[in-house]
Amino acid sequence: MIRVGIVGYGYWGPNIARNFERVEGCRVVRICDSNPDALERVRKSLPGIDTSTELSAVVKAPDIDAVAIVTPVSTHFELARQALENGKHVFVEKPFTSNSDQALRLIEIAERKNLKLMIDHTFLFTGAVRKIKQLVEEGVLGKLYYYDSTRVNLGLFQHDVNVIWDLAPHDISIMNYVIGQKPEAVVATGGNHVCEHEYVAYVTIYFPDNVIAHVNVNWLSPVKVRTTLLGGEKKMVVWNDLDADEKVKVYDKGVEIGNRLGVYDLLVSYRSGDMWSPKLDPTEALKLETQEFIDCIQYGTKPLNDGWAGYTVVQMLEAADKSLKNRGGLIYM
Amino acid sequence: MIRVGIVGYGYWGPNIARNFERVEGCRVVRICDSNPDALERVRKSLPGIDTSTELSAVVKAPDIDAVAIVTPVSTHFELARQALENGKHVFVEKPFTSNSDQALRLIEIAERKNLKLMIDHTFLFTGAVRKIKQLVEEGVLGKLYYYDSTRVNLGLFQHDVNVIWDLAPHDISIMNYVIGQKPEAVVATGGNHVCEHEYVAYVTIYFPDNVIAHVNVNWLSPVKVRTTLLGGEKKMVVWNDLDADEKVKVYDKGVEIGNRLGVYDLLVSYRSGDMWSPKLDPTEALKLETQEFIDCIQYGTKPLNDGWAGYTVVQMLEAADKSLKNRGGLIYM
Amino acid sequence: MIRVGIVGYGYWGPNIARNFERVEGCRVVRICDSNPDALERVRKSLPGIDTSTELSAVVKAPDIDAVAIVTPVSTHFELARQALENGKHVFVEKPFTSNSDQALRLIEIAERKNLKLMIDHTFLFTGAVRKIKQLVEEGVLGKLYYYDSTRVNLGLFQHDVNVIWDLAPHDISIMNYVIGQKPEAVVATGGNHVCEHEYVAYVTIYFPDNVIAHVNVNWLSPVKVRTTLLGGEKKMVVWNDLDADEKVKVYDKGVEIGNRLGVYDLLVSYRSGDMWSPKLDPTEALKLETQEFIDCIQYGTKPLNDGWAGYTVVQMLEAADKSLKNRGGLIYM
Amino acid sequence: MIRVGIVGYGYWGPNIARNFERVEGCRVVRICDSNPDALERVRKSLPGIDTSTELSAVVKAPDIDAVAIVTPVSTHFELARQALENGKHVFVEKPFTSNSDQALRLIEIAERKNLKLMIDHTFLFTGAVRKIKQLVEEGVLGKLYYYDSTRVNLGLFQHDVNVIWDLAPHDISIMNYVIGQKPEAVVATGGNHVCEHEYVAYVTIYFPDNVIAHVNVNWLSPVKVRTTLLGGEKKMVVWNDLDADEKVKVYDKGVEIGNRLGVYDLLVSYRSGDMWSPKLDPTEALKLETQEFIDCIQYGTKPLNDGWAGYTVVQMLEAADKSLKNRGGLIYM
Repeated sequence: MIRVGIVGYGYWGPNIARNFERVEGCRVVRICDSNPDALERVRKSLPGIDTSTELSAVVKAPDIDAVAIVTPVSTHFELARQALENGKHVFVEKPFTSNSDQALRLIEIAERKNLKLMIDHTFLFTGAVRKIKQLVEEGVLGKLYYYDSTRVNLGLFQHDVNVIWDLAPHDISIMNYVIGQKPEAVVATGGNHVCEHEYVAYVTIYFPDNVIAHVNVNWLSPVKVRTTLLGGEKKMVVWNDLDADEKVKVYDKGVEIGNRLGVYDLLVSYRSGDMWSPKLDPTEALKLETQEFIDCIQYGTKPLNDGWAGYTVVQMLEAADKSLKNRGGLIYM
Repeated sequence: MIRVGIVGYGYWGPNIARNFERVEGCRVVRICDSNPDALERVRKSLPGIDTSTELSAVVKAPDIDAVAIVTPVSTHFELARQALENGKHVFVEKPFTSNSDQALRLIEIAERKNLKLMIDHTFLFTGAVRKIKQLVEEGVLGKLYYYDSTRVNLGLFQHDVNVIWDLAPHDISIMNYVIGQKPEAVVATGGNHVCEHEYVAYVTIYFPDNVIAHVNVNWLSPVKVRTTLLGGEKKMVVWNDLDADEKVKVYDKGVEIGNRLGVYDLLVSYRSGDMWSPKLDPTEALKLETQEFIDCIQYGTKPLNDGWAGYTVVQMLEAADKSLKNRGGLIYM
Repeated sequence: MIRVGIVGYGYWGPNIARNFERVEGCRVVRICDSNPDALERVRKSLPGIDTSTELSAVVKAPDIDAVAIVTPVSTHFELARQALENGKHVFVEKPFTSNSDQALRLIEIAERKNLKLMIDHTFLFTGAVRKIKQLVEEGVLGKLYYYDSTRVNLGLFQHDVNVIWDLAPHDISIMNYVIGQKPEAVVATGGNHVCEHEYVAYVTIYFPDNVIAHVNVNWLSPVKVRTTLLGGEKKMVVWNDLDADEKVKVYDKGVEIGNRLGVYDLLVSYRSGDMWSPKLDPTEALKLETQEFIDCIQYGTKPLNDGWAGYTVVQMLEAADKSLKNRGGLIYM
Repeated sequence: MIRVGIVGYGYWGPNIARNFERVEGCRVVRICDSNPDALERVRKSLPGIDTSTELSAVVKAPDIDAVAIVTPVSTHFELARQALENGKHVFVEKPFTSNSDQALRLIEIAERKNLKLMIDHTFLFTGAVRKIKQLVEEGVLGKLYYYDSTRVNLGLFQHDVNVIWDLAPHDISIMNYVIGQKPEAVVATGGNHVCEHEYVAYVTIYFPDNVIAHVNVNWLSPVKVRTTLLGGEKKMVVWNDLDADEKVKVYDKGVEIGNRLGVYDLLVSYRSGDMWSPKLDPTEALKLETQEFIDCIQYGTKPLNDGWAGYTVVQMLEAADKSLKNRGGLIYM
């Protein structure tokens, strides 16, 4: 029985707590938060669980095996470091850390002490992303050409990070998983005249084999959009996460490039066939993800969203920030 | 009565011819195309009009006052030059020319000979764009923040130009008109592994006063999207050109940034009010545009899509190409 | 402080309990349900509240002022009767009773003992319905012509009632409220070959002044639809309850019927203007409704969804059943 | 080579003419219309074709083999009768005739003289309807349960017929074709306070084997809807004719009714699987239909939309009118 402690009970913490409560093989022992009001909410909805305003009551406590860190990103490194140094497995909210050096140092400690380190890239466990990954792996889409995501809405302005650090980790972690390769370089542009951080940004990511990815993130959109297009040689996918019933649509559409005829004429033919929307597993993603964390601890397996996956995402966010400062230069990873 | 000649009767030519036919104050005298099949189609649908396979039968003909050039972009410069040198007003398909030097030379001839030069940026005459321009000019949107357009579909691969030269002139000419300022710099990224020209591209355009614009163009999308978001200080617009009845929606939504409280807390408040979809003038844009060309000739007025408007678009396309070659990178105009 | 008891803690009971818990001026004292598992769920989520498997522990208890009855419709009459006879105000789930005689008898007891009787027609308290009622009352729509509602999905087959008794009470209670007149007659048709109760049905309701209403209800639809059209002389409304952001749209569209010209020609002109989607109050409807019940008890006011409103709905359901048996046929109320 | 004459060149006539012009094996010889302006339009767009204001120049002309009648319904009988009596095959606009007796008489003449009689139920030739028919015939949907269609918009008020005669013939002809059985009875309700004819109507049609159909038609809707739901035992279909790319969607959804457990519990289980949108043949329906007419004449085959199909539609419209007069009584066919 893995004994879990949770640090942070703000916006996302209750979801983490509720899901670890449901997971087989673990028990939530203690939740801490520096805000007493948050702990009052814990006592109301999870009456049997210990609470504390002392973060050390979780990260250093001898009766805890694994720690979930659900606090602002600036605190991740120090909390995770203490937890790992005290021999605890660590589950950290995304983005992993404030910079890639911190991420490397945490990975190093975890590997040295043989502890599990998992970054909360929840979307990887949704029915939609698992189906898309399966379509790519089974070759249904054929060779991938592009990955194009739009994630915009009238959003909560963050005071400590720009819109890329807030919204793009979702898309970046998903594309890294789906494409299955290490990105090569990043270009980012953005606008920031509302406050000092960019509220709108456009990030292009170059992957090997000419695969190109793009993310459009915006806190100032009048409408909410959560749409990703994937273009493949054989088929193409539209994933609209706001569609209640048909989130993933697979299109039997494409072009076929033939030989050149003479100087100018390239033989291009279009193909347009059926569309198919597969039924997706409706299990809550966070339930599967928290179960995966506990399973990895129990069976010694490696999570797909491990420290290295989190590190790559932070590297890409850093590269995007550097490119943003140049108003759009190419930054190699 | 302005006597109009048309060069080129391929995909777009019939629309140009049909509209000039309907315009008050002009008459289509002759249509030429090097392809006899095209001329056969002219004789069938416009029986009264002269045809010729000789382009000079239009650009040099003494019985013609104004020439519409509806041929591939690589031929625009030479045809327009001859027409202007022969004293004819010129209406040219977009994009204006293959490079900005050519555009400048044509503008110089037209100004020297006091002839009208108008570039076919048809969208400027749609009910949607005219309504958006009006909303901006009347201050309904407040200060503009961003202009974000997506124009994707499974499109005709062009053999001579990339997707930016094919699709982005629409968005670029519209944003220049709506924003009403000269752009400062361009960043472009794109993917081209299907053929030698980019089939997908992302273009960021920086305007003065921190206004940022972005265009997402793609010939390989399984679904067709024609959506533009405009963010303003007071109101925001979504223009979905594929919506039959409610193309333009004006949202009374926004954020208000207040003063800083202490170190971290920026006072941000959200506003969400009614949405309003104004009735648009359904007149065919090309009808208004061809009428405008003839009116400008008759009354000596200046078209809003004159040579300089077309020149700026070509400059931006050139800048985008330069940035594309660097895989991103800021190119000043 | 009104002391509330709740009978029934199945599908809807937890929502009723949660909302009464939040209402000013009342306190939930006891929840009873014959199913011990349901009471276990009460103890988990509402730890401070008394539970009992004896329904009399609520409907006859001296420490309770008002009773909410959230049980199957066949039990409503007897439970409400006992509660009223024991001097308690009563809030009953829709539909009010199994037949209109029962409804009349309960109203009679409530009036005799001066107790409040309120039927849970939750939709009347949504932002959408309140806005539509306001538009009608302020004359924005002009004279009403028709009310046309579709409420279909792959639904839970009920074993004791047909789809009209399950789904149509929503639409019927809303149309009665919005139109503000007593219906005159009902025609219903339906299909029932899947089980003995109709799973699909079409109900036409004739109101005074030539206003016609129609409800399309279906448990066997592959897609979920919740759309109501209201046609008025001046304006028309589309209410799509599944649209997250723009549930109510008001169209400045209509026809104007002029005089006859000669024998055949009726002068009909069409009008098509702006569309407008008003911002709706997002407060949870059940919160407002439970507050209204408590307020009515405290201040002696009359709820808009009182016993008579519930009675009319039951009368109409009875009429629909009679018409269904005849496979159509007009049934006067 | 079949020589075709066309009577009537108003709203629909030009489409009929254009399509017969394209059909193999026939030639449009003459078009007549009592309105000289209409004939002027013929001369402009179809310069080679004879015109006349005398209808007898088509229905009685010796140089014509087949006549297309594209005039108001009240004139169909007399024109078709004359054409048939003069030995011409006849293609008639829908609805076939003003009453079912007229339809029977025309069928009788055509059969006696061995002439083809075809009613223009264009929708039967669309890719959507042909695909749906195929799905039903191949048993993909399983036993049919219901057919539910909505066809509403701000429409042209007709002066001589109500909205059922104007819009419902589409749905009725399609359902007869798809269900493949003779309807048993009709119930119709409607509203007519705008003018003397009903502008909104609801028609239920009972088919054998408990199949129920319903049509919602309305000339006063602020939005245009063209949606049909088909429920089958195995699969269900949504046909949205306004969806540019995915008109027909097939849902692997349904309920399975098991045995009864005890008195109340019916075993009902839900099934929800993939959705699939088949590619449809994009050929213009009217092209296929006019070709079918000519083919039937040339090869002696029977059109699927023959006189009997048209007669059944008229019978149903008559029954609907009778039911309307009773405000919703059941009318057997």
